[in-house]
Amino acid sequence: MALIVQKFGGSSVRDRDRIFNVARIVSNTRKAGNDVVVVVSAQGDTTDDLIEKAKEITHNPSAREMDMLLATGEQISIALLTMALNELGCNAISLTGWQAGFRTDRAYTKARITRLETERISSELERNRVVVVAGFQGLNKSDDITTLGRGGSDTSAVAIAAALHADRCQIFTDVEGVYTADPRKVRNTRKLQEITFDEMLELASLGAQVLNNRSVELAKKYNVELEVLSSLNPVPGTVVKEVANDMEGMLIKGVAKDTDVAVVSILNVPDEPGMSFKIFGLMAQKNINVDIILQSTGREGKKDVIFTCSEGDAELAVRTLKEGARFTEVSCDRTCAKVSIVGAGMQSHSGVAASMFEALSNNNINIHMISTSEIKISCIIDRDEADRAVVAIHDMLFR
Amino acid sequence: MALIVQKFGGSSVRDRDRIFNVARIVSNTRKAGNDVVVVVSAQGDTTDDLIEKAKEITHNPSAREMDMLLATGEQISIALLTMALNELGCNAISLTGWQAGFRTDRAYTKARITRLETERISSELERNRVVVVAGFQGLNKSDDITTLGRGGSDTSAVAIAAALHADRCQIFTDVEGVYTADPRKVRNTRKLQEITFDEMLELASLGAQVLNNRSVELAKKYNVELEVLSSLNPVPGTVVKEVANDMEGMLIKGVAKDTDVAVVSILNVPDEPGMSFKIFGLMAQKNINVDIILQSTGREGKKDVIFTCSEGDAELAVRTLKEGARFTEVSCDRTCAKVSIVGAGMQSHSGVAASMFEALSNNNINIHMISTSEIKISCIIDRDEADRAVVAIHDMLFR
Repeated sequence: MALIVQKFGGSSVRDRDRIFNVARIVSNTRKAGNDVVVVVSAQGDTTDDLIEKAKEITHNPSAREMDMLLATGEQISIALLTMALNELGCNAISLTGWQAGFRTDRAYTKARITRLETERISSELERNRVVVVAGFQGLNKSDDITTLGRGGSDTSAVAIAAALHADRCQIFTDVEGVYTADPRKVRNTRKLQEITFDEMLELASLGAQVLNNRSVELAKKYNVELEVLSSLNPVPGTVVKEVANDMEGMLIKGVAKDTDVAVVSILNVPDEPGMSFKIFGLMAQKNINVDIILQSTGREGKKDVIFTCSEGDAELAVRTLKEGARFTEVSCDRTCAKVSIVGAGMQSHSGVAASMFEALSNNNINIHMISTSEIKISCIIDRDEADRAVVAIHDMLFR
Repeated sequence: MALIVQKFGGSSVRDRDRIFNVARIVSNTRKAGNDVVVVVSAQGDTTDDLIEKAKEITHNPSAREMDMLLATGEQISIALLTMALNELGCNAISLTGWQAGFRTDRAYTKARITRLETERISSELERNRVVVVAGFQGLNKSDDITTLGRGGSDTSAVAIAAALHADRCQIFTDVEGVYTADPRKVRNTRKLQEITFDEMLELASLGAQVLNNRSVELAKKYNVELEVLSSLNPVPGTVVKEVANDMEGMLIKGVAKDTDVAVVSILNVPDEPGMSFKIFGLMAQKNINVDIILQSTGREGKKDVIFTCSEGDAELAVRTLKEGARFTEVSCDRTCAKVSIVGAGMQSHSGVAASMFEALSNNNINIHMISTSEIKISCIIDRDEADRAVVAIHDMLFR
């Protein structure tokens, strides 16, 4: 008998029919002889509706009260799903985040799990019950309700799977798995059978945000095998694990794009030791995540430093560099995008990068910056050419 | 500095404007130098909406899961009201039923409070915060969420007032207090300034169900002075206490009617000892609350036993008497109503009963049964004459 953790997102439980669809999946897993812990999110638009209610009251709600408010969304889902399971003759019980033993730090609206006390879940499993747990929420040391932030339910599911040493953690969603590119925008995409944690982290922007990065990091840390699959179409999904079988000889796992990119340029920086530390130390102090860094070779004792960050951080970056570090020639370009190809074995195959550049060249797309790592190659290009670039690269590599 | 408990029902917090109205009342009470604990119900129709969601899933939901579901209603209210208080510059914190220390028995959907652990509320008051508590809910010994049933928020408020020895417990509602009859149906009703706990219990059906009986019983037990008042109109309400001032020389406190009445008749019962015990022992076994009992004098070794109960219990009562006790001549009349007059000093004034009967007689209303107690006189009459009877009696006694 295996122990399986199954997570269902908000769209999977958005109404009565969807709830019964989920109940049938869970009930069948149970009937097949498995112990099952289910993690659910708030129904459909519930979270947005609750946020709307708060906005009517104030534009600056206390984070603690926001968590008190938002935590009701999952509590409604677990009660309804448990009723549906019981209606199907499946013995089940619902547990809120705090009942399920989730203990977190004090960071309301984006709390991190500090401990999972599994006694209650274990004792309910021993009583042959399916345990339905509210995702996204926990309790801090003051006995106050916290929420885990975006994608928190995935994180809840992975944490339970890790703590209970579950045999598998299934993340049900409205897509069938992880694809080589966004299937809504690119022809002939392929569903991946397996992918490594690292590749999945690099591909975060792919596949309609199937998996939240934090949950993948946690799964990697505790080596919890994930399966991403559809709650509507019962076909095998994509397995995310430490070492993936490369059954189809697929070197490249996917082509991704990210349009949330700003390019910050600092021109005529004195070519002295310590300049990079000064710049990026300042960025770190301001909690600005810097992605790609490019530094020109110096001329006449000057150099240019160019880096990318998210658009939301760009203004703060520019202001910090001008006011904090007294750089004068600082500019910011918000018309860029990043396209990347990801694959674990790529490093040893030089032809891959060449193919990518060829695809862009054939389509007259100019490359502004290039960055490579062991498992990915990224190019910064004009944002309005990003979709065309993804199609071109995908066609070239997967034709 | 006084400690005041203020309770607001669902209609008082049904939307943004009403929430801010409540926040202003609370904030002003705080500004006047009082410590304040606020108890709120779920917003407007939230509870009904949640019940509807459950009905879509099953007609036979587990009581535990119903409580898990319904408890979210108050949790939403406390978060929103606390945000509104903070927005008005009033330092406040929300607490769910379990955070506020409500411990209950295991009876889901109708739990009784077994203990109130006041540490958390007290420590928040010491930090100069207004404490906003979710009414209607608690936690049982298994750490599962329970709800207190109809009128549960009133009970929560009275329990807090009793445990903290509050100086006053104010129950805000959409009427201005307790009236001598239902103001929507009877002319010239008067608002009572004071009324005793016992009178209030008898008048439960008056004044749009202003106060739940259980909360009045609890207030009487711990001698918590209640004030019923309007959240929309800032005028003094009605104070409910052990001994009420009879300032206006008002012997009669109100005229009430109850249309949820069924009259069960058992004819030709053997006139033997033990017959009443047999009949009413059976009713008690089936948890049927019997109200008025009337027994005819025997003739030819037979007697008639007639009693009233709620309509919902009538069918079970008849079936039990026929099948369980083998009475053959059992019938049930569902066309009756009970009209009552209530007042603590009534017993020593024989003229009161006579006035009531005179009013009914003048209006050609036939009396089927009469029942008297120390503080009330009730008559069973035809249901379609009930409203007319209340007006007639009220006119006679309060003209």
